[in-house]
Amino acid sequence: MFGRMKTLTSLLPWIGATALAVVGATALRADEGMWLYSAPPRDALKAKYGFTVTDAWLEHLMKSSVRFNSGGSGSFVSGDGLVITNHHVGADDLQKLSDEKHNYLRDGFSAATLAEEKRCVDLELNVLQSIEDVTLRVNAAVPAGATADEAVVARRRITAEIEQESLTKTGLRSDVVTLYQGGAYHLYRFKKYTDIRLVFAPEQSIAFFGGDPDNFEYPRYDLDVCFFRVYEAGRPVRPAHFLKWSAEGAKDGELAFVSGHPGSTRRLLTIPELTYIRDNQLPYNLELLKRREVLLSNWSARDAENARRAREELFGIQNSRKAYDGSIAALQDPEFFGAKVATEESFKKQLADRADGREALAAFRRIAEAQATVTKIVGRHRMIEGRVGFNCDSFGLARHLLRAGDERPKPNGARLREYGDARRESFEQQLFSDKPIYSDLEILTLADSLGMLVEKLGADDPVVRLVLAGKSPRTRAADLINTTQVRDVAFRRKLYEGGSAAVAAAKDPLIEVARAIDAEARALRKIVESVDETKQQAQAIIGKARFAVEGTGNYPDATFTLRLSYGAVKGYEENGRQIPAITTFAGLYERSAKQENKDPFELPARWLQKKATLNLATPFNFVSTADIIGGNSGSPTVNRAGEFIGIIFDGNLQSLSADFGYEDRQSRALSVHSAGILEALRKIYVVDALADELVAGKRP
Amino acid sequence: MFGRMKTLTSLLPWIGATALAVVGATALRADEGMWLYSAPPRDALKAKYGFTVTDAWLEHLMKSSVRFNSGGSGSFVSGDGLVITNHHVGADDLQKLSDEKHNYLRDGFSAATLAEEKRCVDLELNVLQSIEDVTLRVNAAVPAGATADEAVVARRRITAEIEQESLTKTGLRSDVVTLYQGGAYHLYRFKKYTDIRLVFAPEQSIAFFGGDPDNFEYPRYDLDVCFFRVYEAGRPVRPAHFLKWSAEGAKDGELAFVSGHPGSTRRLLTIPELTYIRDNQLPYNLELLKRREVLLSNWSARDAENARRAREELFGIQNSRKAYDGSIAALQDPEFFGAKVATEESFKKQLADRADGREALAAFRRIAEAQATVTKIVGRHRMIEGRVGFNCDSFGLARHLLRAGDERPKPNGARLREYGDARRESFEQQLFSDKPIYSDLEILTLADSLGMLVEKLGADDPVVRLVLAGKSPRTRAADLINTTQVRDVAFRRKLYEGGSAAVAAAKDPLIEVARAIDAEARALRKIVESVDETKQQAQAIIGKARFAVEGTGNYPDATFTLRLSYGAVKGYEENGRQIPAITTFAGLYERSAKQENKDPFELPARWLQKKATLNLATPFNFVSTADIIGGNSGSPTVNRAGEFIGIIFDGNLQSLSADFGYEDRQSRALSVHSAGILEALRKIYVVDALADELVAGKRP
Repeated sequence: MFGRMKTLTSLLPWIGATALAVVGATALRADEGMWLYSAPPRDALKAKYGFTVTDAWLEHLMKSSVRFNSGGSGSFVSGDGLVITNHHVGADDLQKLSDEKHNYLRDGFSAATLAEEKRCVDLELNVLQSIEDVTLRVNAAVPAGATADEAVVARRRITAEIEQESLTKTGLRSDVVTLYQGGAYHLYRFKKYTDIRLVFAPEQSIAFFGGDPDNFEYPRYDLDVCFFRVYEAGRPVRPAHFLKWSAEGAKDGELAFVSGHPGSTRRLLTIPELTYIRDNQLPYNLELLKRREVLLSNWSARDAENARRAREELFGIQNSRKAYDGSIAALQDPEFFGAKVATEESFKKQLADRADGREALAAFRRIAEAQATVTKIVGRHRMIEGRVGFNCDSFGLARHLLRAGDERPKPNGARLREYGDARRESFEQQLFSDKPIYSDLEILTLADSLGMLVEKLGADDPVVRLVLAGKSPRTRAADLINTTQVRDVAFRRKLYEGGSAAVAAAKDPLIEVARAIDAEARALRKIVESVDETKQQAQAIIGKARFAVEGTGNYPDATFTLRLSYGAVKGYEENGRQIPAITTFAGLYERSAKQENKDPFELPARWLQKKATLNLATPFNFVSTADIIGGNSGSPTVNRAGEFIGIIFDGNLQSLSADFGYEDRQSRALSVHSAGILEALRKIYVVDALADELVAGKRP
Repeated sequence: MFGRMKTLTSLLPWIGATALAVVGATALRADEGMWLYSAPPRDALKAKYGFTVTDAWLEHLMKSSVRFNSGGSGSFVSGDGLVITNHHVGADDLQKLSDEKHNYLRDGFSAATLAEEKRCVDLELNVLQSIEDVTLRVNAAVPAGATADEAVVARRRITAEIEQESLTKTGLRSDVVTLYQGGAYHLYRFKKYTDIRLVFAPEQSIAFFGGDPDNFEYPRYDLDVCFFRVYEAGRPVRPAHFLKWSAEGAKDGELAFVSGHPGSTRRLLTIPELTYIRDNQLPYNLELLKRREVLLSNWSARDAENARRAREELFGIQNSRKAYDGSIAALQDPEFFGAKVATEESFKKQLADRADGREALAAFRRIAEAQATVTKIVGRHRMIEGRVGFNCDSFGLARHLLRAGDERPKPNGARLREYGDARRESFEQQLFSDKPIYSDLEILTLADSLGMLVEKLGADDPVVRLVLAGKSPRTRAADLINTTQVRDVAFRRKLYEGGSAAVAAAKDPLIEVARAIDAEARALRKIVESVDETKQQAQAIIGKARFAVEGTGNYPDATFTLRLSYGAVKGYEENGRQIPAITTFAGLYERSAKQENKDPFELPARWLQKKATLNLATPFNFVSTADIIGGNSGSPTVNRAGEFIGIIFDGNLQSLSADFGYEDRQSRALSVHSAGILEALRKIYVVDALADELVAGKRP
């Protein structure tokens, strides 16, 4: 599921690129694009599907779409404020509503009456009401000849002014969003809702049927849905727009639209950056993840308590590993990568023909040089500054104590950013957290990562010799973890308050290891940060040149703003087999039976009991060629008439290429089918009031 | 368990070194050594343990020791021909005796009477009777000035002559064995037994309690035993020597001896070779194994049938991965590796002082140069000639068809060795085997390995471009596996019989891939083979020089000949915790309960039912510092009095260093305790006749 793709970002930082500009028009393929509602692909839809986008159609879809600020999408599906999203988008809220007696996340929930609907703890929903281009006003506020820093300050001031002015005038939440990597600034106004109540959720075992093994796979059989109701002044809202529910739902071959909030894409990285990701970063990430997966799986198999301790990290590792496997598969595809190369070359040719193109071409060269610099030192950087050679919570704490002591006396602006005043509160919360740290698990992971340090830097490397101090990785790891005091919160508090003198006086063995490598760690970090800065500046120049060439005739990289995607409901070929577009309830039962109904293929009891009542030919999940990515979870899939025919909940493995570009041969967006949802609600859960409300568009 | 360490040798060949010479005397540590019975460590035992080795004591132990020619050890434990070995040594025979109705391997076996004892299908046992030094006679048969080839022929002739002469004279199986890497030749005479009958075996779930998770771990709780009886002329033999059973068994701290057949060690590799293994070969092997483990685990989790298809390979991968993790841990230990360096330096100094040392020192330099040559090309060699980039059975068949067509017309001596006449029968049996090959699994592994090919050689490498043909690894793998005909036995037969013309005419896509890379593959192989030859010649020179310096005052590398090891029954410290030397039945039940009695920690029903009858304080397994390795499985552990106090069945993770050298801080040999065996036989299995025979040394 998409939401989980983020798990390891702190562990495995992507390169610092923040390429937010339009994709090259020449590379645009069929059904590609995460389009702005202010610039929909009218021509392409007309040409390929004979579909005319009207303003009314667009407004209806936009105002029916809901943003979950916790990181997903959803939509209004009744005139009485009913909102549908994914079970895994609502999971956070289900968890927060649960207590010792009620595990709604695992067991599901159903409110028979309005009174039984449960108010969520801190959920906020936003519905986009209007888009206004404020680019001229923002740019006008930045004086000609301003330095980069001055420009940032000026832009921040005018942005705040526009937002405040709009809020006062309309009462709507008003955000100025940056698009096209600074090529455009738009004012987005939202209706904001904070009284959100839980109406219905199925069991997690059917919402995430197939678990990690089937994650990112297809065919699938997941009832990944969850219903909430939006209230205002204690009563269900009556939204001006909501999606009519299609009882028939998605049909093979038909045109489908997806309206939601893709989180982020990096489709405009330069070829040297992509080459680096393909040949260096992803192989390294995958080697590391597989190494850790084997380490933790093996340790978990030895002991049930081990398994409990490692479960969450192991799940995150497996999810990320699968996602990266998908990314590298895309970049290793000569056709996919070749298209990226062709697009860049074509754009560079256009630049060469323009008077203002010289600066952008120079920026391309600077990025290539910067990338070469990173490639040279990234191996050491990962191990030493990136802490991959010191993989345990204790070392993280040890380094923070050391560095906080050294950094805090400096002026705020001169510190490493994590020790800045702005982050102080959350930093201290983290540093003094008393979450359990298990010394056996710490020894296990530190020993393994010290072994990796030896492998990657060589046994005779000075850092390796310094760190091991003549011991084997296993012995040294045990010694360090067993003698350091950093797992004691009081000790951390004392050293943090005492500053660098107290830290030095403690002579804690693990902190002393952090100290021994700190000079080189900082030096490596400095190189990477300077390269990132160079790249960002160069990318901004290229982004502006691209915007000058293409304008808003194309779509910007994803930024968690509302976008319109489209495509056909359509199967695909894989390993010589044809994968049908639509699965059925019959397929669900077959899959479960073949896996002997064992976890994670175990069906909830009522699904087994009520099987006979179901029409097993009812569609359950389906795929389409729409261009989506993480953040689109919960997006409504609609037909030409703007009716709800399904809900996005995942992409297949091949769709993991979407970060870097679009392809439609095998890459597919996965939806739960509207007819399947209805069948399950009526026959399995027997919540006819809810089903009737969906069909009628209002409460019965 | 030791036997399993061999599983992946064909997949991951070690370097070609066959260093069989004595270890440097200066590096000899406490309790080190796999000693020849003809040159036991009398002085060390006297000095450290005050123990005097008498000839009678030695002869008794030697003639009580049994070699299982299937690859393990054992011992006589009664005057009526009863032999004990490990369950996992007897597993092959249990399997062969099983049929559709009786799964003796899984469920165990017990014969109440002699008549019920089951004759094994093809088991041969050997008992060493005498050792004679024939070095002078062998060397005298090789004419001065003979070339290497001539020397081989002459040595083969005299060896056969000595063996035949001895057989005629004594009627005993007579083998001339090479020791000290050619420094000595000994004539070993064995009594040979071929009528071996199964007496008793427990359930596999208690013999291998803890399964793969606990493999190579300690504390352990395994009843890894199996009893056979040796017959001659239809009656139990009455061996002149057997071990008296100690009902009390091993005691913490006491001196213990191990008498068995260590398979092979590589303690005399040069430092450049060891450095290569530590920094290049083992990290690569481990990366590959972990990659495949994750691939197959994930695929297995998706489908029960997938799991069945991948099970055997996955188990082999996990076992090898654990073994290699242990090996690299040893080599990454600066103390362990430093001792190896010191030993070599000291030996080189001795050589420098000798007139005949110059040639050996030059041989050291040649090995270093040869190793550097390998290191440069081994990455490409593994991928292209080693087939790591083409991991599937179909590619193996495709290459064999191609190469057999090219090689068979050549004179026998000019062919690649696997196509030689001597191997022809087994080659054809393999080539035309109709064992099932699953195309989905083939696509999975080929796609993954093509991805690895891209990673390791780079996307722009000519071989990569040629192989992928513009497709992604996944698409290309599916295309190749779905269109090749090599999985059809009739097709293979046709091409093999038709020779290279038929192979070319078939234009099979996978064979054409093999052809496209064949020139480079062969060139890489040629380099590696030439380096191996250089190294072997140099190692022989060094081995002879070492023998000239040290003589038989030390022990030779292991060669599956009978050896005597010794050490103390002694716990160790791990991660700051003290691991006791001896475990008990109480510990077994605790471990099982903590794992909720789930596979592989599930106890057989009778172990649960009869728990109350047991004395839970009875010792079950124990560890000692004796120097052992694979092949020692089933070796008796005996006390000063030569009584049976336990039986070797495994080493701990740290003992996986034994291939390269001995250490006694954490490395331990694992035995089943003689008292524990007796308790289980009496209380759980209620086979008092067998227990009484052990205690009395004869049938009741």
